[in-house]
Amino acid sequence: MKNLNIAIVGLGNIGSYLYRYLEKNKKIISEKNNCVPNVLYVSAKNKKRKRAFSINKKKWLKNYLDATKRNDIDLVVELIGGSEGAAKKLVFNALKNKKHVVTANKALIAKYGDQLAKIAEKNKVNLEFEASVCGGVPIIRSIKEGLIANKIKKIYGIFNGTSNYILSSMDKEDKNFFDVLNNAKKLGYAEANPSADLNGDDVSAKLKILSSLCFNSFLNNNIHVEGIANIDKDDIDNANKLGYKIKLLGYAEVINNKIYQRVHPTLIKKSSYVASIDGVLNAVIIDGSPVGQSVIQGEGAGPAATTSALVSDISSILRGNIKFPFSISSKDRKKLKFKNISERFFSAYLRFEVADKYGVLSNITNVFSKNRVSIKRLIQNPKKNKDKSTIVIVTHSSKDKSYNKIVKEIDKKNYIIKKSKLIRIDDN
Amino acid sequence: MKNLNIAIVGLGNIGSYLYRYLEKNKKIISEKNNCVPNVLYVSAKNKKRKRAFSINKKKWLKNYLDATKRNDIDLVVELIGGSEGAAKKLVFNALKNKKHVVTANKALIAKYGDQLAKIAEKNKVNLEFEASVCGGVPIIRSIKEGLIANKIKKIYGIFNGTSNYILSSMDKEDKNFFDVLNNAKKLGYAEANPSADLNGDDVSAKLKILSSLCFNSFLNNNIHVEGIANIDKDDIDNANKLGYKIKLLGYAEVINNKIYQRVHPTLIKKSSYVASIDGVLNAVIIDGSPVGQSVIQGEGAGPAATTSALVSDISSILRGNIKFPFSISSKDRKKLKFKNISERFFSAYLRFEVADKYGVLSNITNVFSKNRVSIKRLIQNPKKNKDKSTIVIVTHSSKDKSYNKIVKEIDKKNYIIKKSKLIRIDDN
Repeated sequence: MKNLNIAIVGLGNIGSYLYRYLEKNKKIISEKNNCVPNVLYVSAKNKKRKRAFSINKKKWLKNYLDATKRNDIDLVVELIGGSEGAAKKLVFNALKNKKHVVTANKALIAKYGDQLAKIAEKNKVNLEFEASVCGGVPIIRSIKEGLIANKIKKIYGIFNGTSNYILSSMDKEDKNFFDVLNNAKKLGYAEANPSADLNGDDVSAKLKILSSLCFNSFLNNNIHVEGIANIDKDDIDNANKLGYKIKLLGYAEVINNKIYQRVHPTLIKKSSYVASIDGVLNAVIIDGSPVGQSVIQGEGAGPAATTSALVSDISSILRGNIKFPFSISSKDRKKLKFKNISERFFSAYLRFEVADKYGVLSNITNVFSKNRVSIKRLIQNPKKNKDKSTIVIVTHSSKDKSYNKIVKEIDKKNYIIKKSKLIRIDDN
Repeated sequence: MKNLNIAIVGLGNIGSYLYRYLEKNKKIISEKNNCVPNVLYVSAKNKKRKRAFSINKKKWLKNYLDATKRNDIDLVVELIGGSEGAAKKLVFNALKNKKHVVTANKALIAKYGDQLAKIAEKNKVNLEFEASVCGGVPIIRSIKEGLIANKIKKIYGIFNGTSNYILSSMDKEDKNFFDVLNNAKKLGYAEANPSADLNGDDVSAKLKILSSLCFNSFLNNNIHVEGIANIDKDDIDNANKLGYKIKLLGYAEVINNKIYQRVHPTLIKKSSYVASIDGVLNAVIIDGSPVGQSVIQGEGAGPAATTSALVSDISSILRGNIKFPFSISSKDRKKLKFKNISERFFSAYLRFEVADKYGVLSNITNVFSKNRVSIKRLIQNPKKNKDKSTIVIVTHSSKDKSYNKIVKEIDKKNYIIKKSKLIRIDDN
């Protein structure tokens, strides 16, 4: 049986899990792919870190960049992370030197994926990154292979387990954002610095990768991104009363030949599939033709799920054929029009915290009317023991930019106590 | 760019859809796979049937078996159907003559898949059958590639859209079995002869294929199969009152190194994911290690969804590498122990239609106690204006064979008006 010689660079939680997995499962993975995954070398920043397993001294590379130079290495698995520095150097050099690359690095692929793909194609090696998007959910392979026949019109879903855990816990446990976040950190569901998970950047990187795969386009940075840090328990309770859940969703969709990419908290009907996905799960929904709607759901993060994805990538290289990293040759990828969402129509939930003054309601509704946004529902709740009220407005479908105008204008009024909220609604 | 010459044999709804799809999408499929899918020949029983599109006269094979003989054919797409006769002859001969085969024929693969895989492996050609299981849901490719790293413990779900449509319509529309079935026929959701969809045979064939893929075993006929023809509106209403939906589910699972395969109507919690799948959709849930639980859902049937699967198979052959049809070489596939479910533990719903006589309830509960089945819940409802009652019993977990004994014994009693019902419960 043939051999494929592998260097794993980066031995944190994921690298360590993968190393041990490949040691234990070498036989079955070899049998399935008719080729032996031979982990010949490893490299890690902290060679002396305590590990629960031992690695033969001969396996350690002197310098991580040796992985890109040694003739006896066929495949480099990059598990360093980050879009710049060591990870970038390693992956660029490995591909330039005709090594296959498997990576879990969404930031790197979202930023440099187009350049990297061109080098891989030129040098006839594979660049695989299933593990960079939604951990164990085989979404990239499904788009590139299982659903290859389809013209995809829309892909959306829950792409970040940390933020979904926080939103669903706030909903279920009647706790506020910071209590839930602290709990998530204790449980290992949120990192010490969870900002990329909470501000939408993590979802944004994943969505850029997915939309370029779905639409056969180059990566595009025209993407609207909002995180969940502004969502409070009151919004979740209001949403519930209105028949919705709040989820951090990523969307990439084609409408009249224009592509919109967006990441934002969304009110979505309680009865919908996406609303039912709680905790750290990821869920992806694809609308394609001829297949119709497909759903793929699973564990989105963690060493075990990520290893599942890494091994699927390694296996595809073991089986031996060369594929286009973005499912189609760089020369055939298109420069499509990516539009800002300001012109797209949404219905929306807006929340205003106001002083209980004469004429406030009339003033607010007047601003809506001036901006030609029609109100579907309005709820005014006085705060207990205070001269303050909350006004919640649900609108009919209007241009996104109208909402921003309204919020901007109303936030200048002297009756506004707190920055107003705008959360888009998905009524599908 | 390379060419792959294809013969499509069988031009019913699916074959026609595929033919037209490949005509329209030749360019993009070629670009994605770096090889042109060239439909050189077609064959159909009824050459003169009216079709909405024209086929060049030169493309028609004189005899369908020419597809297995002509040197200019690389790949035969079999869309005749049925496990015997023409389909069997075509696929066996094609593989023997070193042609790749793509088929949507679950009956053929479930019966002869092991033999066919051996021939394909010996002759180094591909045998692909994604379209034979769950239409557009890329479940086979996900097991063989996306989730290749995983040791799968359980696969289950909704594998038949027709029966799911009937059960969910009975539930929602307050109609009985035959009204819903007639409506399903009108809507094209059920065939003129829907017996394989209703008696569980369709699910059984799919499950055999999936379990051999999941467990790296040969196909095995030890499978318990029950259909839905006995489910009536009262069962569905009773289930609702107890907090369940009734679904026709297929399960393949490893418990203590033994494999159980079973297809039967199941009471499953309303809050579960599977209970929420209505209409003609298919949904597959896989429990694997390291990935955890994955869910894949989509359109299970129809020419469009099936074409999506066929094209994914054709594409994998266009890309050029040879794979094991059952994800592992025939010499490495295992002869695992497949056990009858009689020894497996379930909780169950039992329904007895009885004459309202003195001592009936005591007699029934006595039979349960004698067979050491403990009752969790018992509901007795008198029928209106009649001396009859319905007794519904929900049990704690017991061996499956105990239930069969109980039903057999009670059905002999003179107070029994109608054959008693046993429906297993899935409390996960």
